[in-house]
Amino acid sequence: MTTENDVLNADSSDSTNATAATGSAAADAAGTAQSVHPNFGRITTSGRGDAELAKSLQKILDGEWADTREETRAAMTPDLVNPLGLTMDEHRDHVMTQMQSLADSGMPKLGFKAEDGGTGDTGAALTSFELLGHLDLSVMVKAGVQWGLFGGAIANLGDAETRKKYLPGVMSLDLLGCFAMTEIGGGSDVQNLETTATFDNETGEFVINCPTPSAEKAYIGNAARDGRMAATFAQLITIEDGEELRHGVHCLLVPIRDEAGNDLPGVTTTDHGHKGGLLGVDNGRIWFDNVRVPREALLNRFGSVDEQGRYSSPIDSKGARFFTMLGTLIRGRVSVGAAAGASARTALALATRYSLIRRQFDHPETGKGIPLLEYREHQRRLMPRIARAYAYAVAQNAIVAELAEFEKNPDAFDEVRRREMETHAAGIKATVTGFANDTITEARLACGGAGYMAENLLTEMRKDCDVFSTFEGDNVVLTQLVGKELMGAYAAEFGDMDQRETVAFAINTVADVVQEKTRASTLWQKVVDAVTDREHTDILDRGNQLELLVDREEHLLETVARRLRKAQGQDGSAAFKVFNSAQDHLLQAGRAHMDSWVFARFAEAIDACEDPEAKEVLGMLCDLYVLDIVDQDKGWFLEHNRLTTERTKAATAARNRLCTKLAGRARTLVDAFAVPEFVFDVPMLNDGGVDTIEDPAEA
Amino acid sequence: MTTENDVLNADSSDSTNATAATGSAAADAAGTAQSVHPNFGRITTSGRGDAELAKSLQKILDGEWADTREETRAAMTPDLVNPLGLTMDEHRDHVMTQMQSLADSGMPKLGFKAEDGGTGDTGAALTSFELLGHLDLSVMVKAGVQWGLFGGAIANLGDAETRKKYLPGVMSLDLLGCFAMTEIGGGSDVQNLETTATFDNETGEFVINCPTPSAEKAYIGNAARDGRMAATFAQLITIEDGEELRHGVHCLLVPIRDEAGNDLPGVTTTDHGHKGGLLGVDNGRIWFDNVRVPREALLNRFGSVDEQGRYSSPIDSKGARFFTMLGTLIRGRVSVGAAAGASARTALALATRYSLIRRQFDHPETGKGIPLLEYREHQRRLMPRIARAYAYAVAQNAIVAELAEFEKNPDAFDEVRRREMETHAAGIKATVTGFANDTITEARLACGGAGYMAENLLTEMRKDCDVFSTFEGDNVVLTQLVGKELMGAYAAEFGDMDQRETVAFAINTVADVVQEKTRASTLWQKVVDAVTDREHTDILDRGNQLELLVDREEHLLETVARRLRKAQGQDGSAAFKVFNSAQDHLLQAGRAHMDSWVFARFAEAIDACEDPEAKEVLGMLCDLYVLDIVDQDKGWFLEHNRLTTERTKAATAARNRLCTKLAGRARTLVDAFAVPEFVFDVPMLNDGGVDTIEDPAEA
Repeated sequence: MTTENDVLNADSSDSTNATAATGSAAADAAGTAQSVHPNFGRITTSGRGDAELAKSLQKILDGEWADTREETRAAMTPDLVNPLGLTMDEHRDHVMTQMQSLADSGMPKLGFKAEDGGTGDTGAALTSFELLGHLDLSVMVKAGVQWGLFGGAIANLGDAETRKKYLPGVMSLDLLGCFAMTEIGGGSDVQNLETTATFDNETGEFVINCPTPSAEKAYIGNAARDGRMAATFAQLITIEDGEELRHGVHCLLVPIRDEAGNDLPGVTTTDHGHKGGLLGVDNGRIWFDNVRVPREALLNRFGSVDEQGRYSSPIDSKGARFFTMLGTLIRGRVSVGAAAGASARTALALATRYSLIRRQFDHPETGKGIPLLEYREHQRRLMPRIARAYAYAVAQNAIVAELAEFEKNPDAFDEVRRREMETHAAGIKATVTGFANDTITEARLACGGAGYMAENLLTEMRKDCDVFSTFEGDNVVLTQLVGKELMGAYAAEFGDMDQRETVAFAINTVADVVQEKTRASTLWQKVVDAVTDREHTDILDRGNQLELLVDREEHLLETVARRLRKAQGQDGSAAFKVFNSAQDHLLQAGRAHMDSWVFARFAEAIDACEDPEAKEVLGMLCDLYVLDIVDQDKGWFLEHNRLTTERTKAATAARNRLCTKLAGRARTLVDAFAVPEFVFDVPMLNDGGVDTIEDPAEA
Repeated sequence: MTTENDVLNADSSDSTNATAATGSAAADAAGTAQSVHPNFGRITTSGRGDAELAKSLQKILDGEWADTREETRAAMTPDLVNPLGLTMDEHRDHVMTQMQSLADSGMPKLGFKAEDGGTGDTGAALTSFELLGHLDLSVMVKAGVQWGLFGGAIANLGDAETRKKYLPGVMSLDLLGCFAMTEIGGGSDVQNLETTATFDNETGEFVINCPTPSAEKAYIGNAARDGRMAATFAQLITIEDGEELRHGVHCLLVPIRDEAGNDLPGVTTTDHGHKGGLLGVDNGRIWFDNVRVPREALLNRFGSVDEQGRYSSPIDSKGARFFTMLGTLIRGRVSVGAAAGASARTALALATRYSLIRRQFDHPETGKGIPLLEYREHQRRLMPRIARAYAYAVAQNAIVAELAEFEKNPDAFDEVRRREMETHAAGIKATVTGFANDTITEARLACGGAGYMAENLLTEMRKDCDVFSTFEGDNVVLTQLVGKELMGAYAAEFGDMDQRETVAFAINTVADVVQEKTRASTLWQKVVDAVTDREHTDILDRGNQLELLVDREEHLLETVARRLRKAQGQDGSAAFKVFNSAQDHLLQAGRAHMDSWVFARFAEAIDACEDPEAKEVLGMLCDLYVLDIVDQDKGWFLEHNRLTTERTKAATAARNRLCTKLAGRARTLVDAFAVPEFVFDVPMLNDGGVDTIEDPAEA
């Protein structure tokens, strides 16, 4: 029997339709005038959801590779869930077993082209990686290292012969490899890494060497135990006509261990041992002391050395070459964001289910315990994060689709479109991994003591996801990159762009261009046409929301550009000072851009949704997404006279009301995440102290 | 040789004195007109600090029990640092060894009165617990369970005979015990826990029973392995004249295991196994199935049962009795906040040291790598948190001193003062543990890949500290308690206060009373007298800061009281709705109170500081503390016309400038935390990729 508790409907008279409070008639435009579910806001204390609505919502989240998702989910088994209480070695063994299962299933082949022995479906490959994010992230990361990074380097940078030689072994796991880019002293400053690959004209070999302690490769997955070869990034040096020429960073395949697992001569690997999490991944250091590899070890797509030791490259500029090479490797970055998003959705689903069946403090009248989610604060903890999870999932799908399109048809991408894709890949990675860590933390806290028990998975997810904010590009560095790109994206010049040049690119027209591009979009026209609220005051009006977010981005870009222009004509020190004192401003602009970019993707997806009921719910989630941004950046909107105090207060009230309304469908909202059901077989959802979910058949 | 890098002094012309930007002459009042250190803001790239200044600052942080701190620090050894890579059982054994060392050192005796075999110095006891927070938190928590909670229950609730019988064994570790309060289905709702202790008139025994699955004791430290007895909280029931009488929650000593470690008849313990952290603490569940204990098992300070089975108590009201009993147990709560604060300071010291010697990206002119802390964003990540760490440390000391005073001289405390102490103990616990988790997370992120390696300790600290936000009172529940107390504190009635009654207590005069109390304080008079800025616009003026924070608190209390008043005369359901829809508002009021309360304690400590140099630095930290609050709640100050947009923009700019200025003394600021030096013997501070700190002798 389903018991419905109406305790939350205190405001029902004035909040049946959240738009009412804004005193606007714009609701029709957003399609939310008539609530299909009049009982939004009532917590269904049976804790069950609405299966049909969940399916419709899931369709939006599943996106283009829905079939892959279905197949992957169906193939997933409980042994992919984070195992508990294993020692580091046991966890590593366990993950290798899972890896072998994935290899045997043919999953890795999706990420490689038919000509290389793969099945060539980038979107499906990224999607199946993403879904590993619901489970043990150690498996996801190890798979990413092996197939995405190591395999990806060979596939994207190697010639046909090299690909043919190594890729079958990469896919089958006969050859385990590392992606040896990061150095302990360099971190994010990859362009200036220190390891060298010097061509020895006499022997026709490259000599790989770490010249300083800070040049040691560090944090490298597969380096501590399993890897036999490392795709090693090094400064390529040739001696031509007696002169030492430096050609920038290139990648070479360097064997590091023999079959028995012993370091090869000149190679010293070290085990990083215990980390914050990801115990199943064997991260380690690699030190190269004049290790010799044949000329063919160089992955030569963007630069090769002939038998005479002469270097040549299809790209003249060192910087352009470097960024082009990095560009081919963004799959890893996209995967990391996607898997973190999946992990956040799992955490939200766990915490939401718990909040519906765990009761705290008795109701003063019924004497029955009150489910956690009936408390306003609990709604405020979970619901805005659920709304963001939807927005980010849809935006992440857009990046995956764009990357798949690019890999299928690179010629359709001009320089601007390609760089936009790379920028958004960086931005969504920073946005979603930061969100995921915040969300898993909040989910764990929202489950109290139960949340701290490893058996309930949240702590394990948090430990593993933690480093997602750091690897594949530190989130601060990536957000800064977004800001810089927005400054420089429309300048004609390309490549070799360092801080000084970015400053020089802070041209007068930046914001104009942004505005022009955005306002020319179909979405913009569509929502603007739909606006009935001509005074532009209704914060629940989709067109006003878009304008609010884009306008903030424009203003931030304009003002940061003005600040950076001061650096023009200055020397390096002065230019750095200007740049550094505007760093927070630049980061703010980068974040604002991602907010409006994500919003636009979400709005598009809602626009395309054909189920009116799902469309209504998605509209409310989109409203909550925007209201959450307004709430968090309220100071800015007020300081810059974008919103009056009356409007920000109304926004706060509307945000609270939406939290309550959507809480009434919380279970349905998280069911649409389609996390494999066996993940929920955790003690806190079955154990003493929580309600029993009735069998639907009995209801 | 010390190299000073002036790259950060871009703004030096207008920011030598941060007050300049506010256009006010009030700087004299705050004592910061003349900077003793004209070169604030320059990063000393040697990474060394100013030992003398650090000592002066440390004196302020060390507070009343400075000698205890010195002794405790001197006695601490590297084996107290979080051990790495141990299995759960190994870690538990390791912690037991450390516990035995602490017992042998006599440390636990500090917490017990002379008449009970202790040395009776509450302040010293709490201080030594706090310092364990710099090291392995498993040791701190296990010590807290054994001596603070289990021992504390016996000491505070038991009669002389019971204390004499058990406390020596508690101190020596011959008797290991649990504090069995929390139940799996009840969590924070301790007053309504379900386990029963029913007096059997025939046998003269109590029967301890868990009547439902949700009554199982859960998350109990020492329960999985080491505990032999449990201080068990249960609903006390007597049968008097054939009638079942319920007397509310009482505590009884129940043996749970025999000497060999086997569960006693009727007792079932379960191991929680792996948790998010604190691997060295054996948390478990305890299930009681009609376990019989003698009449003497009841700790009878606030309620006893005579041989005839008749209950009596010195306190009539069940609620008052319960809260009085809980009040005697606040030591644990105070310890938890203190240790979390110590952990946060350790994290800040680790991240700050790293930020001074780890370089990232080359300076465009010098070509040398730029230390992380020279970046504005890095300063913004670390410096406001360092400022808060100072403020919270001082406020925490004030609570410790108050509690020590209370335990020495309880009669000096009237009801209001005692409840204020309890409220602030709850508030500071929530404030500092939340801060600690945020700060350790940020410190870990600020150290990039190195931060994720367990060997560098930050991840281990984060895992362990996580649950500090949940145990000893969930932070949301405690913050709400602060808000409720502020509503009800001045009402005459006491005890049995539930949500409905709190609502009823939301009397007209709440804010008036707050205002009256605050404005009557010596501090208030002192700062108001010192204000030279009669227009009250200078945000760096101490008096204006106090007014700004207190005014926000008053307004929030006033408005939440007005909302809650609507519930008067309503039935339970309606009253709950009113309460629930104001929950976020109430929490906001609770947080605002803690902000201003902490500020007042910090301002008092600065006022008392006699070293002008230290006083100047502390003044800047206090400014940054306030500016950080303003920055985070900017929307509120603008919405309520407390600050103009010009002032909030000036506050943001001043915050940035203060971050930069204080960054120039960052090492000194964290040296003053006096974290034992061996904690810094971690790879990331010594290993490849970071600068070598020169020997001071060579400088």
